[in-house]
Amino acid sequence: MQKEKLLYEGKAKKLYKTDEPRVLWVEYKDDATAFNGEKKEVITGKGQLNNEISSLLFQKLEDSGINSHFLKKLSSTEQLVQETEIIPLEVVVRNIVAGSLQKRTGLKEGTVLDQAIVEFYYKDDELGDPLINNDHIRILKAAQPQEVEQLKKQALAVNETLKEHFDSCGLLLVDFKLEFGRTADKQVLLADEISPDTCRLWDKATKEKFDKDVFRFGLGSLEEGYTEILKRLGGAVHG
Amino acid sequence: MQKEKLLYEGKAKKLYKTDEPRVLWVEYKDDATAFNGEKKEVITGKGQLNNEISSLLFQKLEDSGINSHFLKKLSSTEQLVQETEIIPLEVVVRNIVAGSLQKRTGLKEGTVLDQAIVEFYYKDDELGDPLINNDHIRILKAAQPQEVEQLKKQALAVNETLKEHFDSCGLLLVDFKLEFGRTADKQVLLADEISPDTCRLWDKATKEKFDKDVFRFGLGSLEEGYTEILKRLGGAVHG
Ligand SMILES: Nc1ncnc2c1ncn2[C@@H]1O[C@H](COP(=O)(O)OP(=O)(O)O)[C@@H](O)[C@H]1O
Ligand SMILES: Nc1ncnc2c1ncn2[C@@H]1O[C@H](COP(=O)(O)OP(=O)(O)O)[C@@H](O)[C@H]1O
Ligand SMILES: [Mg+2]
Ligand SMILES: [Mg+2]
Repeated sequence: MQKEKLLYEGKAKKLYKTDEPRVLWVEYKDDATAFNGEKKEVITGKGQLNNEISSLLFQKLEDSGINSHFLKKLSSTEQLVQETEIIPLEVVVRNIVAGSLQKRTGLKEGTVLDQAIVEFYYKDDELGDPLINNDHIRILKAAQPQEVEQLKKQALAVNETLKEHFDSCGLLLVDFKLEFGRTADKQVLLADEISPDTCRLWDKATKEKFDKDVFRFGLGSLEEGYTEILKRLGGAVHG
Repeated sequence: MQKEKLLYEGKAKKLYKTDEPRVLWVEYKDDATAFNGEKKEVITGKGQLNNEISSLLFQKLEDSGINSHFLKKLSSTEQLVQETEIIPLEVVVRNIVAGSLQKRTGLKEGTVLDQAIVEFYYKDDELGDPLINNDHIRILKAAQPQEVEQLKKQALAVNETLKEHFDSCGLLLVDFKLEFGRTADKQVLLADEISPDTCRLWDKATKEKFDKDVFRFGLGSLEEGYTEILKRLGGAVHG
């Protein structure tokens, strides 16, 4: 497999074409950003940690029968994935109140929801990724109604597998963001990444935060938090 | 009918008990507020205009078979209404892009939607009346799922009647906010007010704004805009 031209550089990853049609080469970067790019830092080792964690989680999902764009880990910072046409929605699943859900509803951080909830945000940095409802998705033509149903169903299935898996590693899966794409034959497929950049993960006993909130709110070392998560998932820690 | 103790004073109205059980006496105030109370002014004649317009519109809805809390107009600033337990949701219907929908979606102001959309906001001044989805409504216990369906259906029915009525008066019904309550026997009933404080209304030909946006953005005289709406609806203009 050959890495070819750069297709897209985002805040956390670079995507390259390969000599194989519809296969992309992903490079996880060391850039940390928060608050829609307002806070920004380079953290050596972050790309590696996210690539390792994301690879382990996509593999775990596959073992549970949930497909994703993940094909294989190439190196400590690189993966091969299936190319998709990204659906411009951030699909957020929440098990415990934190972050914007706390601000929106006034419910206390840490409140355990009796049932997971799903939110859709319009993936648009200029608009600040606003919360939207099904009617907004329709007028924005972001996804078809039957795709929206698929997204919700698949996101909740991912939650069931990951929540249980993290629990067995002593971690609480508070909430997380997924992105999905359309394959060549217009099927909805889980894409992007699943990492401490995109999940809130707390220690089950102490409720210590190990995820990007450590960086967002300057609570300590991002690298230490992410390393702790990788260790608990049974991954090989580099460096 | 006797007016009794003050039950609640809001930003736009005072609600009094009466000697009749479950009947409330509403007084429309001259206070104009915007941006969650940040902008505030007393505009003599506003209470009268909103009471006249709201009474005409509730009457129009009743003539079309849509029930509301409205019982009768008592004076130029007062109504009798049926008491309800207010559901803490602002139900917004939109026919044309304006205001927060423009900000949220990036769609251009004035874009005509092919089909009306419905939004739910959590009625909570401290939280700034945030947009919420059905899952948020569930965890906030703001309404039952079957009530949410009722709210959406009734709001769209109100839209059909009002849109046509305003159109026949040379006005575009851009969007509006409704509130609903529960009656003693737990039925969903349209409540609160329908006025230029709660509707965006534009001249059909020139797109001139006659509603509260005139006050929000200092575009001219609120009283003139509201008076124009009352005149077009065939109401009696006082003073
Ligand atoms: N399988 C895929 N096919 C095409 N694009 C993808 C795939 N997986 C992820 N992407 C996109 O790659 C881009 C780069 O990722 P990232 O650096 O996280 O970007 P962002 O700054 O938008 O968060 C994102 O726009 C993401 O949606
Ligand atoms: N039929 C009704 N029964 C009980 N409360 C009502 C009814 N109609 C309206 N209300 C409530 O009356 C209050 C006063 O109205 P308003 O001055 O517009 O208040 P606000 O400042 O909340 O907008 C609001 O809380 C509204 O929900
Ligand atoms: Mg990203
Ligand atoms: Mg009000």
